[in-house]
Amino acid sequence: MIPGLSSPIVQAPMAGVQGSALAAAVSAAGGLGGLPCAMLAPDAIRQEVARIRARTDRPFNLNFFCHTTPPPDTAREEHWHQLLAPYYSELGVAPGGRPGAARRPFDAEALQVVAECKPAVVSFHFGLPSDDLLRAVKAHVPTVLSSATTVEEARWLEAHGADGIIAQGLEAGGHRGHFLSDDLTRQMGTVALLPQIVHAVSVPVIAAGGIADAAGVRAALALGAAAVQIGTAYLLCPEASTSPVHQDAILSHDNRHTAVTNLFTGRPARGIVNRLMRDLGPLRDDVPAFPLAASALAPLRAAAEAEGRGDFSPLWAGQNVSGCRQIPAGALTRALAGST
Amino acid sequence: MIPGLSSPIVQAPMAGVQGSALAAAVSAAGGLGGLPCAMLAPDAIRQEVARIRARTDRPFNLNFFCHTTPPPDTAREEHWHQLLAPYYSELGVAPGGRPGAARRPFDAEALQVVAECKPAVVSFHFGLPSDDLLRAVKAHVPTVLSSATTVEEARWLEAHGADGIIAQGLEAGGHRGHFLSDDLTRQMGTVALLPQIVHAVSVPVIAAGGIADAAGVRAALALGAAAVQIGTAYLLCPEASTSPVHQDAILSHDNRHTAVTNLFTGRPARGIVNRLMRDLGPLRDDVPAFPLAASALAPLRAAAEAEGRGDFSPLWAGQNVSGCRQIPAGALTRALAGST
Repeated sequence: MIPGLSSPIVQAPMAGVQGSALAAAVSAAGGLGGLPCAMLAPDAIRQEVARIRARTDRPFNLNFFCHTTPPPDTAREEHWHQLLAPYYSELGVAPGGRPGAARRPFDAEALQVVAECKPAVVSFHFGLPSDDLLRAVKAHVPTVLSSATTVEEARWLEAHGADGIIAQGLEAGGHRGHFLSDDLTRQMGTVALLPQIVHAVSVPVIAAGGIADAAGVRAALALGAAAVQIGTAYLLCPEASTSPVHQDAILSHDNRHTAVTNLFTGRPARGIVNRLMRDLGPLRDDVPAFPLAASALAPLRAAAEAEGRGDFSPLWAGQNVSGCRQIPAGALTRALAGST
Repeated sequence: MIPGLSSPIVQAPMAGVQGSALAAAVSAAGGLGGLPCAMLAPDAIRQEVARIRARTDRPFNLNFFCHTTPPPDTAREEHWHQLLAPYYSELGVAPGGRPGAARRPFDAEALQVVAECKPAVVSFHFGLPSDDLLRAVKAHVPTVLSSATTVEEARWLEAHGADGIIAQGLEAGGHRGHFLSDDLTRQMGTVALLPQIVHAVSVPVIAAGGIADAAGVRAALALGAAAVQIGTAYLLCPEASTSPVHQDAILSHDNRHTAVTNLFTGRPARGIVNRLMRDLGPLRDDVPAFPLAASALAPLRAAAEAEGRGDFSPLWAGQNVSGCRQIPAGALTRALAGST
C-alpha cells in the first residue's frame, strides 16, 4: 500500500509517550513508524524528523490533529477548577494555569514543515484540514491518511481526498478519531467496523483497535485490511517514553479495565481507569472543550506522578494490552508481522 | 468441539425472533442450531424439540436465561408507567399490565425438560444456574456453554463447570451476557476480548459479536476461536420469525446505528436505535429490573407495530448487519462456514 514498506505494521502515533526513537525503530524494521506532531512546535518536528532520517531512509509518517481550537469559556473553565479544587488542596498544589496551546491543530506553519520534510505519509486525526491546506499537503506527500470511527466518516474521508483510511475500532487506545458525530454509540468494535468500511470505500483500509499480536494482524488482514495500525503493544518498548506510572498501570492487574473518558483533554479517549475517572465518572458534559481541559490537571498529574501515582494522568491504552512486551520496537514489529 | 457438527457455526439463540424452524435448518446444515427457551413454557419446549428432531438428528442447543427474578418494586414500576404515560395517550392504548413471567430463569421444571430431551448442548445466558441445577444438567447433557463479556467472567465460568465459553464481544446484538459486573465499560470488542479469553481458559472458546460472513469466521478462528456464534446474520432468513418492523429496520439505512439499551427489558441489550431509545436515552437508572420493564411496553409495541412502526419494539441486532441475507438458513450456514 505504501511503497518501501516490507511489513503490514503501522505504528500508531502516540503523543506524549513517544517521539522519533520509536518511529525510527519501527520504520527501520520495515513497518511504518509514526511521529506524533500535535504537541511539538515546528522546530521540534524538524529536529525529530532529522533524528528519524539519521537512523533510517525508510518511509515514516507525520501525524497531526486537525481540531478547531475552541474560544475560551471562562464559566466552564471556572467550573472545572471548582471540580478539581479538592484535589489541589489534597495534593498541596496551586491550581493549574489557564489553557495553553499544548495541542495544536494542523496549520500553515505545520504545512511548511511538511513541505520541507516531505515524509512518505501524513496522517490526520479528527478529520482532515481545510481543503486548501489538504491540497497543499498532497502536493508534497504521496499518501495522506485519516481515521474513521463509522462508515459515514470513512466515506467522507474518501470523498475529501484521503488516500487510505484507518478504521479505528472502539477497542483502540487514546483519542477517538470521530469528527462527524459526537454520539459514541455510533462507534463500533473493529470486527464489525473494518469489513463494513472495506466494503464502503475503494481506498486501502488500515485496521486499528484491539490488535496486539501476529494472530490479530492475520485476522485483520483476513477481514480485508491492507495494513494494521498498532499502538498499545509498543508502550513498553525501550524506544517509547511511556512514564513509569503509565508502565506500572499497564503491567498491573487493572490493565484490563479501560474506559473512554473526556476528563483529560475534553475529547473522548480510551485509557486505563484511574482515580480521577472513578471519582468524577469517565465521561462528563461539563469538561472544558478539547484541548482546554488538560492544563488544569497538569499540576495534579505532576505531583501525583512524583509520588509514583497515576491518579491524574492519562493512562492511554487500548482494550488489549496482552501484546505489550518489553522488547525493542524493531523486534516487536517483526513479531507482529509474523516474520520472526 | 461438539461431536456431530460439520461446521464451526453456532447459531445464536434469539428469543422472540425464532423457534425450532431456524434451529433445525442450521443443525441440518451441519452447524449448531439453537432454540431460545427463556420465553417458552415447558410443554412448548417439548413441542419445539420434537419439531427439531422431526427435521434432523444432528446436535442442537437449548438456551436458557439464569437471572434471578427480582421482587416487585411498586414505586419503580409506577415511575416507569409515568414515563410512558405520554405514549399511552398518544397511541390511545391502556397502560401495560403488571409484570408477568415472560422471561423465566432456568429452574427445576426446565431441568425436567432437559433431562427428557437430552440435547447435545445446553447454553446459559447471565452466568450459570445454581451448582445443584448445573450438576443435574451435566448428568444429562454432554456440553454446557455460557457467555462471558470479560476475562473474569470467562475464568469464573470455567471454574464453575462450563465446558465451553462464548466470548461475547460488545458488537453482539441482543442481551449482554454479563453477570459479575454491571459496569459496561468492562466489556470489550470481540477482537480484544476473544484472544484474551482464549489465553485465560483451557476450555474451547466460541467467538460472538460482529461476525457476519465467512471472512469474519476465518478471522475469529485465526484469533483462537474453536467456533463462531452468529445471530444477526440469520434475522432475515425465512425460517426466522423476525417481525416486519424489525426486518424493515435491518434493511433501512439506519441499520448501522445500534446502541446498548436497558429500556425494553431492564437489562442492557444491543438493538437498532428507535424512537423510544432516542426519546428516553438508551440507558437509564430508573427502568424496572430485568425482566420487569417489558410488560409496560407491550401495548405500545403492539399498537405501533400494527401501524408498521417499530418505535417501541426491541429491534435487537449487532453492529454488523452487513451479513443479513434473505436466503434459507442452511445455505447461510454453509456460506458462513466457507463451504459454498
